[in-house]
Formats: sequence, structure tokens, C-alpha cells
Amino acid sequence: MTAFTANDHAMMARALRLAERGAYTTKPNPMVGCVIAQGEEVVGEGWHERAGEPHAEVFALRAAGERAKGATAYVTLEPCAHTGRTGPCADALIGAGIARVVAAMRDPFPQVDGAGFEKLRAAGITVESGLMEAQARALNRGFLSRVQRGRPWFRVKLATSLDGRSALASGESKWISGEASRMDVQRWRARSGAIVTGAGTVLADDPQLTVRLGDDTPFVPPLRVVLDPGLATVARGRVREGDAPTLYLHAPDAKPPRGLQAQTAAVTVREGRFDLDAVLRLLAERGVNEVQLEAGATLAGAFLGAGLVDEVLLYVAPVLLGERARPMFDGLGIDAMTQKLKMSIVESRYLGEDVRLLLRPGSPT
Amino acid sequence: MTAFTANDHAMMARALRLAERGAYTTKPNPMVGCVIAQGEEVVGEGWHERAGEPHAEVFALRAAGERAKGATAYVTLEPCAHTGRTGPCADALIGAGIARVVAAMRDPFPQVDGAGFEKLRAAGITVESGLMEAQARALNRGFLSRVQRGRPWFRVKLATSLDGRSALASGESKWISGEASRMDVQRWRARSGAIVTGAGTVLADDPQLTVRLGDDTPFVPPLRVVLDPGLATVARGRVREGDAPTLYLHAPDAKPPRGLQAQTAAVTVREGRFDLDAVLRLLAERGVNEVQLEAGATLAGAFLGAGLVDEVLLYVAPVLLGERARPMFDGLGIDAMTQKLKMSIVESRYLGEDVRLLLRPGSPT
Repeated sequence: MTAFTANDHAMMARALRLAERGAYTTKPNPMVGCVIAQGEEVVGEGWHERAGEPHAEVFALRAAGERAKGATAYVTLEPCAHTGRTGPCADALIGAGIARVVAAMRDPFPQVDGAGFEKLRAAGITVESGLMEAQARALNRGFLSRVQRGRPWFRVKLATSLDGRSALASGESKWISGEASRMDVQRWRARSGAIVTGAGTVLADDPQLTVRLGDDTPFVPPLRVVLDPGLATVARGRVREGDAPTLYLHAPDAKPPRGLQAQTAAVTVREGRFDLDAVLRLLAERGVNEVQLEAGATLAGAFLGAGLVDEVLLYVAPVLLGERARPMFDGLGIDAMTQKLKMSIVESRYLGEDVRLLLRPGSPT
Repeated sequence: MTAFTANDHAMMARALRLAERGAYTTKPNPMVGCVIAQGEEVVGEGWHERAGEPHAEVFALRAAGERAKGATAYVTLEPCAHTGRTGPCADALIGAGIARVVAAMRDPFPQVDGAGFEKLRAAGITVESGLMEAQARALNRGFLSRVQRGRPWFRVKLATSLDGRSALASGESKWISGEASRMDVQRWRARSGAIVTGAGTVLADDPQLTVRLGDDTPFVPPLRVVLDPGLATVARGRVREGDAPTLYLHAPDAKPPRGLQAQTAAVTVREGRFDLDAVLRLLAERGVNEVQLEAGATLAGAFLGAGLVDEVLLYVAPVLLGERARPMFDGLGIDAMTQKLKMSIVESRYLGEDVRLLLRPGSPT
């Protein structure tokens, strides 16, 4: 195991922060940051901004110019060795005369997966990997999930009352949470590759499911996905309005109407319900790294029950809705304490009068 | 309005911290702290430890001795002017030659209520009141509630899952919250004058409802109160075990069995349910300042619905119990968003893996 210096850590931390600037725009690519340093002096830095545009290393090398010679390049992910829409970064680092490359982690993407490191080493460059790897993995949990598990990182967004209710018995849920929470949701939408909802939510709320950040921060609009076995909601227009694509997932025997201005795809149905794992695999194949579910208690409960939920983004408003209101997750069917579902509170913060909890299934690690 | 100095504030803050040491023992008396200072030098301090024993001022004067002459006495509550189980503190302050008395607040107790201040002023002592009054009122919210509203401060203690469930459908609730939370509950019990529960909880859990602090911190055991209209649970023994009194409240037509080793009292019943306001008034008459309800969702919901809840002490465990489990508050009967009950989160903190929220009804002030 390489012993990294405090300076190495500082440079990698900087590269990680740079990488995160691409959170709304790099999808389906991973976020990557790069810092080029001569000892403690940063001579160039960059981050991957958008798929199809140059990688982080290229921006950093451009900024460093001649000073890249003999320098260390800190990268949050293994440099690529293949020619995609841009040339291989490994070649660019070699050509610029970089002496040492420190990477946070190997890129599991099949066309890289160690080949970048090999190419650099073959050119006589010192290569070290694993610095702040946990942080780098957390940053690209969506990309890594898609590449390694074949399904996107799956987040359930919910707004509930203190007594854990997601809507009134009538289905009304406008508005349980406050304005600060609703603004915050937009930022989580912006980093998602897809926003998934159900037919029930489309019928009850007719949501648009677009990203509205309230300023001119650039983002790649997430795909809006409606799970609608019988295509019963295609007459509802708002989810097809605005500047973002829409995809209806339907049962194999449902026929999309002619002239529908949206994408459609069939997904296997078992016992009247979608194969939710197949839904997620389909989205991964379409390059979706992170999914945000914005639906009712039934669909949220179905995904949770199927063991497919990676995190729950829970906005708790300081109100009580009482025993008649709808549950947070429906269909869990718990009858004994031994069946209770354990969650970990990863983070909690106030947003206006609400509390936002980020939860992951399972015990804390 | 008097302009208090920074030194005045520091001394009163010290007196308030001293007062709080009596939280488990002064009931039904208020907590009171006293600091005697010559300028910035503390020459004596004391707090009221136990009803029937000397007041804070007496302990502080004893400690100060001759140095009380010409000093300022900081007291968190107006000194008494009447002879109760101990002599009047106003006389003691006068006798010791105190030059100035700074009080956080006037004592609304009918036998004081300004008479202490008058007595001091008549003796030529400078008297100022209102320094850190909000903190002093918060400290004695139980005592003030009893004296001014004729009912105790009413706290509902609840342990729930993240999805707001207080028990499984079977009634099982052992254990939703973790060990740190269950220890914390003991400290809130210790400061209560009464722990109230319902017949349903006695039947389901057979709780003892005693204070178990796990060390030798002294406390006055709170009265255990069982709301049991038909006295159906008197065969259950644990709530009468241990070193604390027990009171059964029953419907006027129920007859306590002979030889029952407990207190009993009848309370009006309307339409088959206790007059909950009458329950609280009865407890206030018995000198209870703070009540802690430890019961199920039905009784908690009934008190909340009656507008009698002052605060909710909510332990949220990071688990999900699902849609079949029991609600947090039952019987609220909310059908429209306009009927939602607004709460304020006064405080939140982690306790082990749980989160403890302290809630008050209404919007934040």
C-alpha cells in the first residue's frame, strides 16, 4: 500500500471538489476532476463537464502548458486508454511529460479497467491508485452502480409528515413539505439520469417532473419515466411538456397510441406487476446512472420490498396528518418485530422548518 | 426596563444552572437557584433541593456568611415572603444585609406574587426583576403551568419508526427505540411529577413505570397514574410494584376492589371517555407540575385532539414498520390539508442510532 503525503491528500480533495462540478452535466459519463501539481503548487486543473467534450485531464493539461513536464497529475478516476468521442487521456498525459499519476480509483468501465494505468506505466510514468477511494466511489455511486451492477443507483424521494404519512386518504399531498425542501428536490433531480413515477401519481397530481433550479446553472435534463402497464395515463400531458424526454414503460400487451410524442418500451409483467428489476436494467442500458423515484407509497413500497432501493431522501415536515392518511411505504406486510426494515441515517439537516434525512437500507457500516 | 450588565447576565446564568440541579427533587416546588456576588466575585451560591428543606437563598446566604453584607443576590424566582415549611427568604436576605436583589421573574404563586419584592423594597433593598425571564419560565414550565393554568405541563413520550408507527398491529412495541433512547426516557421520567398510562398499555405491556437512572442520583419518584374507567387492569401488578405511589383513575360507577394497594379517584366520563381536562386538573390539585404520558396511540391521540398536549418527546428509530402497524396518534380524523396539525421542532439530537425530536404544537414563535 502506497503511503500518500498530506499534500497528496490535499490535491486529491481538490480534484474531488472539481469533479463534483459536473454533477448535473456529465451524465451518463462519470464525474472526474484533475489537478496537476509541481510539489505543492497547482499548475493546472480541470473537470469533465459534459459527455462528448474533453475529459478532466485535457482541461488540466491545457491550463498547465509547459509546466506539466515532470509534474504529478491527480485524477479522481483512472485515465482512459481508449478512443471514445475524445482521444485517450493516458496518451495526453504521456505526451505532456507528466512524471507521476495519482488516481483515486481504477475505472471499472470495461474499455478502461486497468488499461489506462498499464499504458501510463509502460511509458515510464509512476502510477499510484487508491487515494481517497471511498470518497471517489461515493461521488460516482451512480456510474459505478450502472457499470458494476447493471442497474442505476436508486433513490426514493419522499415528503412525509412527522407521523410518516405521504398523502391524505384522498391522495392529496400538496404541500406537505415546505418551499426550501421543494427547491432542494430540484437539485437532486438535476443530478439524476431519470425521474421515475407511476401511473397513480400522474393521475392524481399530473406532475411535470422537470428540473427547475431557479437560476441558469446548466444541467442535462433527466429522462422522465412513467410506469404505466396499461398506458392509461397517456392523455395526461404535463409529463410530456417542457424540455426533457419522456419514456412510458408498459406491459407487453399494451399498444402505444399512434402519434404519441414520447418514447415507449415494454417491460415484463408478473402477476399484474412490473418486474422492477427489469425496469432498472432497462434504464441502465439507456445510460441512466442515478434514478430518483417520485411516486406514491405503493410504488415506493414495491421497490423497497424488492430490495432495489439504495437510498431514501426523506423530507419530514413538522405536521401531523393522522391515522387516516396514506403510509410512507405501502405493501411491506410486516407483522413481527423481526421483520422490521433496518435503515441507517446517513445525514440529517434542517431545510426551513422541515428536516431532511438521507437513509440507506441496512445497519450503519 | 432595567439595563442589566454582562456580569448580571453571567451571575443569573449561573443561578439558572444551579436551579436545574433540583429538577428531579424539588417537585412540587419550583426549581430555584441563588448566587450571591460582590461585583464579579461569587461569595455564595445555593439551590432548592427538596420540598420541605431550605430554599436556595438560605443555602447561598449560609455560604456567603458575613460577605453577604452589601452584596447582590441573583435569584431565578422572586424570594418568598410567607412562612411555609421554612421561614420567608425575603426576611433572610434583609437580615443578612443584602443591598440588591436581581430576580429572573416574579413568582405567580398566590402566597408570593409580588409580596416578596415589596418586603425587600420596604427594607431599602434595590430590587430588579426580569433578567433572563424567558429561560427562568422555561425552567419551571411545569410549576408555572400548574399555578397559572391549573393543570400540569403535559408531555407525550413516544417511540416510533421512521414511518411513524408506534407499535405493530399486534400491539407489540418492544423495542422500537434503542438503548440510549430508553435510558434518556428515564431522565424525563425523573423530572416528571406523574407518569400517566392507559389500561390498554397496562394490558399489553404490564409496565412498571418507575424511574431507573442506573446510578444513585436522587429523585422524587413520580406518581404512576393509570387511566382505567372500568378498573379492568387492577389485577396487573407491575404498575404497583417498586418504590413509587400508584393512582387509578376510574369512572364514577366503577368500584375499586377491597384491599387494593393503590390510590383511586373517580373522574367524569363523557360518552364513554374520560374528561381529559378533568384528569389533568385533578393531577394539578395533587401538586403535579409535569406529566409524562407513556401510552398507546389512542390515548396520545385523545389528549392531542383535546388540545391538551404541551410537548411531544419523540424518539424516532431508523426502522420501517410498514402500513399495517399502529399510527403515532390515533383518532385525529384529518381529511383535508387545512386540518393538518402544525408542530414546531424545538430541538433534535441523535441518541445512539435514534433521533430524538422535541416538538410543540403550533408554528414556531
